[in-house]
Amino acid sequence: MRLDELKVGDSGSFTKTITETDVYNFAGISGDFNPAHVNAVEASKGIFGERIAHGFLVGSLISTVVGTVMPGPGTIYMGQELKFLKPVRFGDTVTATVTVKEILTEKKRVIADTVCVNQKGETVISGTAVFRPPLA
Amino acid sequence: MRLDELKVGDSGSFTKTITETDVYNFAGISGDFNPAHVNAVEASKGIFGERIAHGFLVGSLISTVVGTVMPGPGTIYMGQELKFLKPVRFGDTVTATVTVKEILTEKKRVIADTVCVNQKGETVISGTAVFRPPLA
Repeated sequence: MRLDELKVGDSGSFTKTITETDVYNFAGISGDFNPAHVNAVEASKGIFGERIAHGFLVGSLISTVVGTVMPGPGTIYMGQELKFLKPVRFGDTVTATVTVKEILTEKKRVIADTVCVNQKGETVISGTAVFRPPLA
Repeated sequence: MRLDELKVGDSGSFTKTITETDVYNFAGISGDFNPAHVNAVEASKGIFGERIAHGFLVGSLISTVVGTVMPGPGTIYMGQELKFLKPVRFGDTVTATVTVKEILTEKKRVIADTVCVNQKGETVISGTAVFRPPLA
């Protein structure tokens, strides 16, 4: 969607089940081999009791919405604020939703609420995105 | 490092060359198949003139520092603010650095400056992290 087509309240979502495979591949890409993500023995002794997904892996679903759903291709992603509220466990199904909160027409920017919710309805990540939708 | 060992100014870094392989694997994990990342023909017509890495892929190097370098394993990542300032192109070598800015002893939290810099010394991402280092 172009900047002039967007209105406050417009939203888009993307849902994905986060698997062990995702987490291990993400570790290989990012270099983040924190035992909380890849060591079942250590993770079992930690605060969450088992391995969990990387926060950035889960957060990347927000980027998927911005870049491919709403507003979609042509959007320039300028910023993102994330609060990691709850762990995402292997097998959890997460829905990222981006909702237009404010349109700064002069600056050609949009501010949007961003949230990731698990299959139980619990918010696992909240935050705000700033992006420039395509102009034409 | 434990909370009681950390002091303002402590920092850690992680460096990685971001490859086409990383970007394609990241698209498969995140579902973000935005043409800016995976379509060379479309990307050549866009603002950056070629395919670029996902911002969240680059930002994930910050998480790697927090979770594996400084403070390292046992840290609970609570929040991250990101500003995407410049594109990262395939083959760029990015260094993420996390520097302790403020220690909130009562709340057991640390606020840190976070920055990702490319091989030319250009800042590609700036931001702030909030985390709870291990207590013991």
